[in-house]
Amino acid sequence: MLINCAAYKEGRKLDEIPVEKISDYIARDDCFVWVALKDPEPAELDVMQREFGLHELAIEDARHGHQNPKVEEYGDSLFVVVKTVDLVEGELKVGEVDIFVGKNYVLSVRSESQQSFLGVRARSEREPHLLKHGPSFVVYALMDAVVDHYFPIVEALEDELDKIELNMFENAAERSNIKRLYQLKRKVMVLKHVVSPLMESAGKLYGGRVPAMFANSQDYFRDVYDHLNRINASIDAIRDTINTAIQVNLSMVAIDDSEVNKRLAAWAAIFAVATAFAGIWGMNFKWMPELDWRYGYPAALGLMASVCSYLYVRFRKARWL
Amino acid sequence: MLINCAAYKEGRKLDEIPVEKISDYIARDDCFVWVALKDPEPAELDVMQREFGLHELAIEDARHGHQNPKVEEYGDSLFVVVKTVDLVEGELKVGEVDIFVGKNYVLSVRSESQQSFLGVRARSEREPHLLKHGPSFVVYALMDAVVDHYFPIVEALEDELDKIELNMFENAAERSNIKRLYQLKRKVMVLKHVVSPLMESAGKLYGGRVPAMFANSQDYFRDVYDHLNRINASIDAIRDTINTAIQVNLSMVAIDDSEVNKRLAAWAAIFAVATAFAGIWGMNFKWMPELDWRYGYPAALGLMASVCSYLYVRFRKARWL
Amino acid sequence: MLINCAAYKEGRKLDEIPVEKISDYIARDDCFVWVALKDPEPAELDVMQREFGLHELAIEDARHGHQNPKVEEYGDSLFVVVKTVDLVEGELKVGEVDIFVGKNYVLSVRSESQQSFLGVRARSEREPHLLKHGPSFVVYALMDAVVDHYFPIVEALEDELDKIELNMFENAAERSNIKRLYQLKRKVMVLKHVVSPLMESAGKLYGGRVPAMFANSQDYFRDVYDHLNRINASIDAIRDTINTAIQVNLSMVAIDDSEVNKRLAAWAAIFAVATAFAGIWGMNFKWMPELDWRYGYPAALGLMASVCSYLYVRFRKARWL
Amino acid sequence: MLINCAAYKEGRKLDEIPVEKISDYIARDDCFVWVALKDPEPAELDVMQREFGLHELAIEDARHGHQNPKVEEYGDSLFVVVKTVDLVEGELKVGEVDIFVGKNYVLSVRSESQQSFLGVRARSEREPHLLKHGPSFVVYALMDAVVDHYFPIVEALEDELDKIELNMFENAAERSNIKRLYQLKRKVMVLKHVVSPLMESAGKLYGGRVPAMFANSQDYFRDVYDHLNRINASIDAIRDTINTAIQVNLSMVAIDDSEVNKRLAAWAAIFAVATAFAGIWGMNFKWMPELDWRYGYPAALGLMASVCSYLYVRFRKARWL
Amino acid sequence: MLINCAAYKEGRKLDEIPVEKISDYIARDDCFVWVALKDPEPAELDVMQREFGLHELAIEDARHGHQNPKVEEYGDSLFVVVKTVDLVEGELKVGEVDIFVGKNYVLSVRSESQQSFLGVRARSEREPHLLKHGPSFVVYALMDAVVDHYFPIVEALEDELDKIELNMFENAAERSNIKRLYQLKRKVMVLKHVVSPLMESAGKLYGGRVPAMFANSQDYFRDVYDHLNRINASIDAIRDTINTAIQVNLSMVAIDDSEVNKRLAAWAAIFAVATAFAGIWGMNFKWMPELDWRYGYPAALGLMASVCSYLYVRFRKARWL
Ligand SMILES: [Mg+2]
Ligand SMILES: [Mg+2]
Ligand SMILES: [Mg+2]
Ligand SMILES: [Mg+2]
Ligand SMILES: [Mg+2]
Ligand SMILES: [Mg+2]
Ligand SMILES: [Mg+2]
Ligand SMILES: [Mg+2]
Ligand SMILES: [Mg+2]
Ligand SMILES: [Mg+2]
Ligand SMILES: [Mg+2]
Ligand SMILES: [Mg+2]
Ligand SMILES: [Mg+2]
Ligand SMILES: [Mg+2]
Ligand SMILES: [Mg+2]
Ligand SMILES: [Mg+2]
Ligand SMILES: [Mg+2]
Ligand SMILES: [Mg+2]
Ligand SMILES: [Mg+2]
Ligand SMILES: [Mg+2]
Ligand SMILES: [Mg+2]
Ligand SMILES: [Mg+2]
Ligand SMILES: [Mg+2]
Ligand SMILES: [Mg+2]
Ligand SMILES: [Mg+2]
Ligand SMILES: [Mg+2]
Ligand SMILES: [Mg+2]
Ligand SMILES: [Mg+2]
Ligand SMILES: [Mg+2]
Ligand SMILES: [Mg+2]
Ligand SMILES: [Mg+2]
Repeated sequence: MLINCAAYKEGRKLDEIPVEKISDYIARDDCFVWVALKDPEPAELDVMQREFGLHELAIEDARHGHQNPKVEEYGDSLFVVVKTVDLVEGELKVGEVDIFVGKNYVLSVRSESQQSFLGVRARSEREPHLLKHGPSFVVYALMDAVVDHYFPIVEALEDELDKIELNMFENAAERSNIKRLYQLKRKVMVLKHVVSPLMESAGKLYGGRVPAMFANSQDYFRDVYDHLNRINASIDAIRDTINTAIQVNLSMVAIDDSEVNKRLAAWAAIFAVATAFAGIWGMNFKWMPELDWRYGYPAALGLMASVCSYLYVRFRKARWL
Repeated sequence: MLINCAAYKEGRKLDEIPVEKISDYIARDDCFVWVALKDPEPAELDVMQREFGLHELAIEDARHGHQNPKVEEYGDSLFVVVKTVDLVEGELKVGEVDIFVGKNYVLSVRSESQQSFLGVRARSEREPHLLKHGPSFVVYALMDAVVDHYFPIVEALEDELDKIELNMFENAAERSNIKRLYQLKRKVMVLKHVVSPLMESAGKLYGGRVPAMFANSQDYFRDVYDHLNRINASIDAIRDTINTAIQVNLSMVAIDDSEVNKRLAAWAAIFAVATAFAGIWGMNFKWMPELDWRYGYPAALGLMASVCSYLYVRFRKARWL
Repeated sequence: MLINCAAYKEGRKLDEIPVEKISDYIARDDCFVWVALKDPEPAELDVMQREFGLHELAIEDARHGHQNPKVEEYGDSLFVVVKTVDLVEGELKVGEVDIFVGKNYVLSVRSESQQSFLGVRARSEREPHLLKHGPSFVVYALMDAVVDHYFPIVEALEDELDKIELNMFENAAERSNIKRLYQLKRKVMVLKHVVSPLMESAGKLYGGRVPAMFANSQDYFRDVYDHLNRINASIDAIRDTINTAIQVNLSMVAIDDSEVNKRLAAWAAIFAVATAFAGIWGMNFKWMPELDWRYGYPAALGLMASVCSYLYVRFRKARWL
Repeated sequence: MLINCAAYKEGRKLDEIPVEKISDYIARDDCFVWVALKDPEPAELDVMQREFGLHELAIEDARHGHQNPKVEEYGDSLFVVVKTVDLVEGELKVGEVDIFVGKNYVLSVRSESQQSFLGVRARSEREPHLLKHGPSFVVYALMDAVVDHYFPIVEALEDELDKIELNMFENAAERSNIKRLYQLKRKVMVLKHVVSPLMESAGKLYGGRVPAMFANSQDYFRDVYDHLNRINASIDAIRDTINTAIQVNLSMVAIDDSEVNKRLAAWAAIFAVATAFAGIWGMNFKWMPELDWRYGYPAALGLMASVCSYLYVRFRKARWL
Repeated sequence: MLINCAAYKEGRKLDEIPVEKISDYIARDDCFVWVALKDPEPAELDVMQREFGLHELAIEDARHGHQNPKVEEYGDSLFVVVKTVDLVEGELKVGEVDIFVGKNYVLSVRSESQQSFLGVRARSEREPHLLKHGPSFVVYALMDAVVDHYFPIVEALEDELDKIELNMFENAAERSNIKRLYQLKRKVMVLKHVVSPLMESAGKLYGGRVPAMFANSQDYFRDVYDHLNRINASIDAIRDTINTAIQVNLSMVAIDDSEVNKRLAAWAAIFAVATAFAGIWGMNFKWMPELDWRYGYPAALGLMASVCSYLYVRFRKARWL
């Protein structure tokens, strides 16, 4: 679906233009064209390929989707893939934005993504002194918008981790702790595989050898890289903490279990003693003089109680009870 | 076994040619020869070595097989090894394709592989504008075919992991979970050792210093590299998840076991109390006044039931039962 | 809040200057301006941006805070982020110092940090032969002060680890060991993420390609790097030891538990034997000749005691008791 | 012990020569000398140092032995260390071959190694067209012989792993599994430390900056490197699998143990019920009407059997039995 | 404390010289000064700084001590830190040697180290042809002496590991195994942090870009590097083995424990059966015909014995007993 198709000159919008005019406008030297598609039909992509003269392999990637984040040069033009991430009902939904950039055009193709970039266009049009930089600024604005969406996701994952952690030290043996740690780890890995290659790619857009048309936006792409770097460090910290938490949780379960064991053993001992005594005086030997004593029974009960109490106190001291 | 032996000129098939004519055709400047062997006899390889003038060490590798994926330069020619992978009844079957490439020839030798490359040849012959690029395009087409076969394998492994995962949280103590995780890990490692060195090798065919005859197919080999990169990332994610799952499964078993322990302890306590009471009133002391009471027995039963019920409720609250 | 705003010439303080004069002073060739802010209002930062001509992206970072430690070049000026760390009631408090450096100015912006840098300024003013080096020396003095604060933190973490370790081998099953190990790990990771990127950044300020204005302070920044390197090595050692300690603690719990199990089993066996004997002689068979023996009862008690003692001795020897 | 000392010209053996003549022969331009020692006396090494003019540090290494595999340049000459590995009664025996190579000589010193290199010399002498390449080919032939011996070792270790694995899933709790895994890991590490540095060293003998005298044998050393690479990949796979197997084995033991626990708990419950009933009817209360019923006893037995059977069936369904 | 202060010319000692003359001698072109201090007072270091013209930052490092091993260039001079390690009553004692090297001087400052370097000086003076190389040879001789001391330490740690290992498979549940593994790991990490940065530093003294005055001693520093490399490989192997041993020990404890559990369960079952039977025949039902049989009692005992024996044999077969 075509969202937008406009030509810009010196940072200001010239006009919305019809799709068939794209090739005419990009033939001009003094303006650039910015087109946005959303979940496009194959035919729409065919038209774009013809109008912009896009490389067969790049258009094939856009058609199939499910690419890794990357920045690829095709001659003078660039093919950029970034992934959007949304948190929907506790699950991460990953979408894709494929961006074709040339000397004087930007074509963004958004797929399976919940994020709209209308805001990016509106804001860019309000800042002509920046938009004047041309396609490279548009690419920056799009990447910046996508990357800024990662921060709340990371925070949500950190919050989830904090919650699990808190519960872990109070109710170690709850199945849900370990299950939530596992599911959190999987989410973190999804995010990691979105962020890590994008960071690597963003690193190619400033510093050393950068594509000519990005030469004067390097500070901006370094800023994107820096954001990704912070996100990546947080992700790594969460990953590492989850791994430790899984081990710590196992230890907590083992400690719990060992306490149950000690209490089981202590009570078993106490009752075994009582039962043994009772068993002995329940024997049917003829000659058992204490059975005939007037206060034999209370004495027996007293002895049993004493021994059991003694054991109880000892176990208490040994912290088995 | 010889599968195919043909000469091509400007992207179109000239003719099937006899093996003995190969050296004549590759002596010509205007065409290239494309030969395909399958599980060849030593003698067949000898003929090929003679006709194409292949390097002794390369032909030795082809003869022995079981090479790691690699790209080796021998003067002006190249020796490429890729591994095919098929999923047969749940097991990974690994085959090998050795490709000798020169300025105007391609010789592919397929061993222990279930995949046929007739489709690759047919498709190439239908696209003369691409086949015109000569041997480098043929190598690309072969590698692309092999690599495209990796995707469904990775998906099958991911599915298997999802199934184990689901079962793990419901029946942690089933031996089959852990056994399947172990076997999945082994499969993943087989795939990793097929994909990882091939990715490294493909990385040499574009970008920096590439062999001259591949100079104008770089975009294509970057595409192969990109596919391998995605596959490799998925493999790493599966590996990492399996490792976590093994630990999580151990924790689930420990939690299961600790619950059994608690229930065992709780019931043991309840019955120990009952048995101790019964034991006491089963003693044979003369003077045990309650034994003579009219409602001594029901009172005793009542007391035992009360104490046991009290314990039951307490254990219930403590979630031991 | 403005803490300080002064101009320096040849290593000596010229005067405190009003904020509006900053741009005049930095227009001069013979002196430099050193300004310090603490938790500034947005308006204060706006003034600074105007007076110093700071880059929009750098000022944005200072405004938002929560940056990773870094060194960024913006044309001829530099933007440096370092993190301060304080140990307050056992918790790590992380603050931030953002430093803008130009040919003849330094602006430091301190946020959420408990550390004051008045001492740094005082010491610098007492050493005009060093302060003469200009802004690069001021940056060094600030970084050095921040980094020197890391050492006692690392030592405190090492002490905590030593304490846990000692307790671990004596009271393995105490919940607090594992909880403290976990919390220590989290603290160590916080410190790691403060130190590690700063070390990387400091490494850019000496050796290879360094910003021109830092050329003659390289030995000083190498010294900072060297300190960070030592701290980083200590952090890695603590991390590694914590990981090992978590595993070792689990093993200790398992050994503890297995000893409880053995003692439980041993005592259970001893009492089971006694109870079985008592049960047998408590049976109501008519013909049980030993019940009528004169010394049947003491003989029975003796037999029970002998068997139990024998078991006790055997368990003792087997180290179950 | 001197094994062999001969001069070669254009790939053919000139003659066996006496040790004192070595320096004369290597002074000539048209031939090269190939000497082989085995477990030499210090005096023999002294003679060699004099005749070949070997560097003090290299000869010291040969004297002490126990070097890591390496390739070191001393001016125009090279010092190569490779380790031989043999599997003797299930144990890995590591030997050492130190090779001194110059423009026209090769001196190999074999220590504590069970492998003879007479075959290498014989084969080389049968292929004068290769031996003509001089010392670099001899070095290749020796390294190739050593490296080819690694393959059966790796296969033996893989077989051992397969056997352990098979047993592990059937008899998890056998001590021998874990012990064999541990010992296998140690063996694998020995092999790793033999293979890994040699691979690194072999990598210096082709490709980039190689010693002049090896310039035209690069294809051969790449082949050695490639073999080592395959071996190294297999070693890494075994290592990784052992680590996983150790964890999996622990999980299997835990599952085993938790099943024993469940059965113990189930049977304990069943018998506790029976014992409690028996205890109750063994009490000595006067008024216990059921004791006087005609069929009280069979009814009691029946009740006990019913309850126990009910429990048995329930435990069966819950898979505790 | 001043240990030694002498001037050397062409590899031979000129004379012991007074400290105040140092600057005069190093002003000469034809000789070099070699000074050794041990645990010096601040004042002694001040004198040295003046006489040798040492850099403030380097002297500060020497004053504070506790540096990481490193090699730092200060203009034409070098500052080298190496750590000595001694094994005193099973504990590692780490000392430090700081070496200042210039065109014609060496100053070594030894702190908290048990090793004397008098032997190094004596040996050097006996080899004027080597000492003639000047300061670089002295630095090599000192480093070589320090590094040679690491080998017996590594061997001692390996022996300790072998002992633990042996005991581990025989007495898995002994607390001391795991404690010794933990302590060994800590020692290994101390050694690792001494060796690893020194190896990195030594790597800068040969090969690529080395300080001018070390140019003709490169073979010697490569030899030091090579020794460190071997030590480092051994350390890594010990570390890896300890990690595996900790896991293996946990598995052995689990297996031990699971065997205790099985025996506990088996004996509990056997006695429970006996006790249940006894309990049944201890009931007080009127009509229990078998109680009146002549051989009821022996029959009962026989039945109990048979059932118990049957269970015993079955448990034996199942290897629970
Ligand atoms: Mg990070
Ligand atoms: Mg990472
Ligand atoms: Mg990581
Ligand atoms: Mg990381
Ligand atoms: Mg980390
Ligand atoms: Mg990781
Ligand atoms: Mg990846
Ligand atoms: Mg990987
Ligand atoms: Mg990875
Ligand atoms: Mg990985
Ligand atoms: Mg990973
Ligand atoms: Mg674990
Ligand atoms: Mg470190
Ligand atoms: Mg580290
Ligand atoms: Mg680290
Ligand atoms: Mg680490
Ligand atoms: Mg470490
Ligand atoms: Mg682990
Ligand atoms: Mg563990
Ligand atoms: Mg590998
Ligand atoms: Mg490896
Ligand atoms: Mg590995
Ligand atoms: Mg590896
Ligand atoms: Mg790997
Ligand atoms: Mg691996
Ligand atoms: Mg484990
Ligand atoms: Mg190593
Ligand atoms: Mg290492
Ligand atoms: Mg390591
Ligand atoms: Mg290692
Ligand atoms: Mg390792």
